[in-house]
Amino acid sequence: MPMTTEIDLIDEGRAVLIRWPDGTKQRFHAVWLRDNAWDEATRAPGNGQRLITLGDIPADISISAAKPEDGLLHLTFQPEDRTISYDPKWLADHGYDVRQNKVAGWTGSDIETWDAGLSAGIPVGDFSAVSRSESALRDWLYGVRRYGFGKLVGGPVEDGALFKVADLFGYVRETNYGRHFEVRTEVNPSNLAYTGLGLQAHTDNPYRDPVPTLQILYCLENSAEGGENMVVDGFRAAERLRAENPRGFELLTRYCANYEYSGSAGVCLRSRRPMLELAPDGELIGIRFNNRSTAAITDVPYEDMADYYAAYRRLGELIDDTSMQVTFKLAPGESFIVDNTRVLHARKGYSGAGSRWLQGCYADKDGLLSTLGAIELKDRKAA
Amino acid sequence: MPMTTEIDLIDEGRAVLIRWPDGTKQRFHAVWLRDNAWDEATRAPGNGQRLITLGDIPADISISAAKPEDGLLHLTFQPEDRTISYDPKWLADHGYDVRQNKVAGWTGSDIETWDAGLSAGIPVGDFSAVSRSESALRDWLYGVRRYGFGKLVGGPVEDGALFKVADLFGYVRETNYGRHFEVRTEVNPSNLAYTGLGLQAHTDNPYRDPVPTLQILYCLENSAEGGENMVVDGFRAAERLRAENPRGFELLTRYCANYEYSGSAGVCLRSRRPMLELAPDGELIGIRFNNRSTAAITDVPYEDMADYYAAYRRLGELIDDTSMQVTFKLAPGESFIVDNTRVLHARKGYSGAGSRWLQGCYADKDGLLSTLGAIELKDRKAA
Repeated sequence: MPMTTEIDLIDEGRAVLIRWPDGTKQRFHAVWLRDNAWDEATRAPGNGQRLITLGDIPADISISAAKPEDGLLHLTFQPEDRTISYDPKWLADHGYDVRQNKVAGWTGSDIETWDAGLSAGIPVGDFSAVSRSESALRDWLYGVRRYGFGKLVGGPVEDGALFKVADLFGYVRETNYGRHFEVRTEVNPSNLAYTGLGLQAHTDNPYRDPVPTLQILYCLENSAEGGENMVVDGFRAAERLRAENPRGFELLTRYCANYEYSGSAGVCLRSRRPMLELAPDGELIGIRFNNRSTAAITDVPYEDMADYYAAYRRLGELIDDTSMQVTFKLAPGESFIVDNTRVLHARKGYSGAGSRWLQGCYADKDGLLSTLGAIELKDRKAA
Repeated sequence: MPMTTEIDLIDEGRAVLIRWPDGTKQRFHAVWLRDNAWDEATRAPGNGQRLITLGDIPADISISAAKPEDGLLHLTFQPEDRTISYDPKWLADHGYDVRQNKVAGWTGSDIETWDAGLSAGIPVGDFSAVSRSESALRDWLYGVRRYGFGKLVGGPVEDGALFKVADLFGYVRETNYGRHFEVRTEVNPSNLAYTGLGLQAHTDNPYRDPVPTLQILYCLENSAEGGENMVVDGFRAAERLRAENPRGFELLTRYCANYEYSGSAGVCLRSRRPMLELAPDGELIGIRFNNRSTAAITDVPYEDMADYYAAYRRLGELIDDTSMQVTFKLAPGESFIVDNTRVLHARKGYSGAGSRWLQGCYADKDGLLSTLGAIELKDRKAA
């Protein structure tokens, strides 16, 4: 590629215009280029951290000379009078000279939304395989990142086995519910999860900020009648809402809802966040949906409240729609993980003879995505 | 108050208009009222969780009768033909029939931004007092919530003492750096924090999503020359930027930056979030600022990049401005906590004779705010 790359100084050297061999063009500012230099005086060789601050770069920085040579682009910066070399492939991959025309509610290329059709293609890992083999772990984590959901089968049937699942990729998030919690019927339950009641599909702990971004539920006993688990892709539900009712979608993203839980002594958890959360550029990055712990919604003005509630109702209907749901019953030693910012989970009511005992814990996506990212990086380097 | 409260049905019973004794009026929708009922069929008596879903409430709900009596407001809902009673004080406190005219970057009433003037009024707790006394703990946590920063003095000088600080209010967030990390000079450091270098004020781990929302740094040895700590209120810096350069402020909120850390084997942490984060209604809820781990910013279009960088530069200058900074040197047994979504921390370089050994850990704000909220709730009930 670099053989016929051309660079021109533009805007009095405050930027460059690069013409790539394929004819496309990209502009880069001098300050951006200097800030993103990878020479050893700018970045620590071992850990890659930047050694300088933006204040170390002169505000009047410009480029006085630019030339492609030996497969690199050599840029001379003033007033430092310093030449730094850039990898043209890295620059081409990090170009920002493009028009972004994204629709509110867009999702990234790493994820794919789904409905009941996923039943045939659930990401399932074998506990022993993912514990032993990096490629099996990578494949399973890839599925979890893509679908926000995955099952593990063939695990040990023992108290605390769920921690071995978390250890595969990251760290448990301890909360007032403990490092883990027992999901079984209790007398005087502090939470309706600890009853035999059916629970509408929900995300966990929306009253917590930050919410736990992953949840693991691990089955130790499940001979009771009922008690199936069900998952729904909240992002698909949001997409359907947007398609049907763009204004309703917008209302659920524009206003904050309130969530609250104070069911145990010494606990008073509250959050104020939208049901559908967008990044500032419209990326759909989260859903909070939980009938049990939604508090009074007070940030929607009177004029919009009826439409807001209609959208909230419709979102619930989409979540309750069986064509959206993947249902399964865990056997002892089986577990599942959900991205709690995206995928809702539910359970059917259970009762009668037999027993049902799950253990649950929270963890965070940073660890999971990091573990997967590091394997992918290694694979790319080896390729 | 309820003695002369009047209620009228409006919009064919789809809402009510309440005239409070002081002459003010508030409207409430039937669906909102029904959803926020506190009767025992709607909310679980023990834990307060909602027992019904929005789908259990008829879409055509309306109110057929409304009357104040015995200090309560009694509303009859159709088609359920069911009368539910409401506490007028609760309704008055949760009204939403108001015009919201908030300026982007507003902050809540629980917090107060500060500059170097806070040096005289740092929230300082005595380790023994906050460990023994709920009111001492409440006062200290109140300060941490308000200023995003607090010191503790008089703690034990022993390995792991920082966990006792986290135990006061919540739970440690374990990460790839461990349940805690040692902040002292290392050979071949995986992170520049583990050197004697000065570090510009920063928030920790912006490359993690969710970021750890609290950080504790606990001093065990500090006889080295230098090594003072410094904190800056990132929200005050954002407010100053907004006042000077509204467009620059807006650019830092509107576009996502990228953050990355992959300085250790098996770790590849990346995030895409704005430097200044707003809730959808403009509340300032977070700052990410870290020169070491800011990756190439690629979501700002070419046309806005020069202004974006100018705003980023100015934000850094405000953070580096000594009139914004509170500086202190920890003695062994002293520690400080920062709200890592708001308050930046720095340390001066150190070297020479003597030693410097801090231990750090992360935790989350949900636990801290819950612990404080529960004490405040108890105090209000006792009052």
